[in-house]
Amino acid sequence: MTMIYLDNAATSLKRPPEVAQAVARAMTEFGGVGRGVHPASLAAGMAVYEARQATSELLGAPCATRVAFAPNATAALNTAICGLLKPGQRALTTAASHNSILRPLFRARDEKNCTVDVAPIEIDGSLDFAAYESMLEHAPALVAATHASNLTGDVYDVARMASLAHDAGALFVLDAAQTAGSLPVDMAQLGVDALCFTGHKGLLGPQGTGGLCVAEGVEIVPFLEGGSGVHTFDERHPLFMPDRLEAGTLNAHGVAGLAAGVAYLRKEGVTAIHERELALAHQMEEAVSRMDGVRLLGGHGGIDRSGIVALTVGNVDSALIADTLAREYGIATRAGAHCAPLMHKALGTAEQGAVRFSFSPFTTADEVSAAAHALAVIAENVREVHHG
Amino acid sequence: MTMIYLDNAATSLKRPPEVAQAVARAMTEFGGVGRGVHPASLAAGMAVYEARQATSELLGAPCATRVAFAPNATAALNTAICGLLKPGQRALTTAASHNSILRPLFRARDEKNCTVDVAPIEIDGSLDFAAYESMLEHAPALVAATHASNLTGDVYDVARMASLAHDAGALFVLDAAQTAGSLPVDMAQLGVDALCFTGHKGLLGPQGTGGLCVAEGVEIVPFLEGGSGVHTFDERHPLFMPDRLEAGTLNAHGVAGLAAGVAYLRKEGVTAIHERELALAHQMEEAVSRMDGVRLLGGHGGIDRSGIVALTVGNVDSALIADTLAREYGIATRAGAHCAPLMHKALGTAEQGAVRFSFSPFTTADEVSAAAHALAVIAENVREVHHG
Repeated sequence: MTMIYLDNAATSLKRPPEVAQAVARAMTEFGGVGRGVHPASLAAGMAVYEARQATSELLGAPCATRVAFAPNATAALNTAICGLLKPGQRALTTAASHNSILRPLFRARDEKNCTVDVAPIEIDGSLDFAAYESMLEHAPALVAATHASNLTGDVYDVARMASLAHDAGALFVLDAAQTAGSLPVDMAQLGVDALCFTGHKGLLGPQGTGGLCVAEGVEIVPFLEGGSGVHTFDERHPLFMPDRLEAGTLNAHGVAGLAAGVAYLRKEGVTAIHERELALAHQMEEAVSRMDGVRLLGGHGGIDRSGIVALTVGNVDSALIADTLAREYGIATRAGAHCAPLMHKALGTAEQGAVRFSFSPFTTADEVSAAAHALAVIAENVREVHHG
Repeated sequence: MTMIYLDNAATSLKRPPEVAQAVARAMTEFGGVGRGVHPASLAAGMAVYEARQATSELLGAPCATRVAFAPNATAALNTAICGLLKPGQRALTTAASHNSILRPLFRARDEKNCTVDVAPIEIDGSLDFAAYESMLEHAPALVAATHASNLTGDVYDVARMASLAHDAGALFVLDAAQTAGSLPVDMAQLGVDALCFTGHKGLLGPQGTGGLCVAEGVEIVPFLEGGSGVHTFDERHPLFMPDRLEAGTLNAHGVAGLAAGVAYLRKEGVTAIHERELALAHQMEEAVSRMDGVRLLGGHGGIDRSGIVALTVGNVDSALIADTLAREYGIATRAGAHCAPLMHKALGTAEQGAVRFSFSPFTTADEVSAAAHALAVIAENVREVHHG
């Protein structure tokens, strides 16, 4: 049974072949970045610089040197949040946040005497903007929020959120794990101070890549300290970008693959990819809307959406639905809580979880049809069990 | 001009072909580890578990679940040092330490009111054991030290150091970046509480891999908090190993390559590889010892050594020597300070730096001959300039 992979919001599986080729080539050609003057080291340094440049252009960062690479979005978010929020300060997030925002904030609350406010999400997935605005009156130093819910795919009005945050004197950190590469993201246009991204989802790069784009004038305290290849005799880590936020040997092999993913996206066009994924999401929703007992999550509050369809079937545990899809139909989805605890509470799905179907540039309409068909059969069986 | 790559202490360049093959395969087969129940996710989870198992067996860790992966040794050392050293406590290291130990310790000094003692290294590269012992009388909570100098290759008597540290009530963190895979390392035999390793040097894996092996009963406070795939509704990161020390999507693509590197080492035998590299180091030293004005660094104080030969030529800036080796002979070495500032001060080479030749299992005697020949010509020219 060929697997139909609809778990792209967790990690990409199909990638342009250039990505793996770039990684393989890097593994035979690259020395350490900034760790020598011989051709292998220089080749690594040049490739990584080009990757910074391409990433900065794709995401609207100020310039190549304001892009620091990290092993994943979680590391980038820990870096941004811990490095911007000072002891005793106040932070604001939304209930749509992934644990990669929530847990660093709750750690700051527990260990740095910070206060954390959480703007509520409505049961339809939308942000309670009035509550968000009133929480900004508490004058947080930092707002950290997600660009799109990793559960529903709903995209929030980050430009407005960031503008309001700036008016209130707060810095704005964006979690773009679900949007970078999947829909047009322009950091400057959104007015974001630090944009955290992962490489292995929409950017189509390998696992082990990601990073953060930092606006000019925003200085994040280094999260890691260690080898920098330069300024060796300084007792503390150097403070110029991007070295400031990178320590130890950079994953230049992975970054080479990420650069190939970014090059593919720039060639295909992120807008075109977004429209393709959106059409698949609409196809799935249209099919699902005809199924009794299936509830679609979100979809009402966003200004846009990514290629995700999340749902519940009756009151059946989402894990059971995902298991059945995987075992009987070879369809890979993700059930459970998706590391988004407050979002599930807001949607009333904390107990049951949700089944998430998430698409990629390589997902086909036939695969979505197969998923919709399988889900219809499962939903019908569930109804019969309940009514039978 | 074919490059002769003698900068393996910075990063490996030649690897068994299985390593790149494993990464490429992982990139087409793996979902996210612990992020679903479909075959792609399970394949990733299984491969990563097997990598933990193999790594734990190679390095003498208690079991697979006591191995947490990290993007490099620097991240692992930051994790171990920040997660074990509490505010106000005392730490001890040696002047042989890399900045990946020194800078996290100095940060703890500056930000957590900790005290940091540094046991001196003699001009011959050996540890001043009397000073180390007397510094243990100050009752540090933590000793963090390197297994082998990344500059001289000298291996320190870690079993004795760790035993003395334990007698003094301290935990012992080992930086095995230079030794894991290059010489036999047995964490249990050495009596180490946390062993930090990198994947892209002696272990022959890709960049972006590494980790830490943690002894039973040693509980490191999580460094990163975020997505864990389990226990989603807990406000803080889960505390069981290895999830405790891993957050966000694991680099399963890289770890698959690391596992292939480890498999190669277990097949070839680390002892056999160590002997081969040692023979190359002796060959180089033997040749260098006949060159006037060339000083070999270290080599007298260790109980063993890795495949590194570091030297100075007259009082010529080491960067100039390495440049000439690269440009005129195609020989890749590493000059400068090697992120080991106190070691260079101890050896009296802080100004001049050193040229480091470092070998791998794939380095040949012919390559070492070529390097020795090139160095002899350069040293002769330097002498003529000085005396001419």
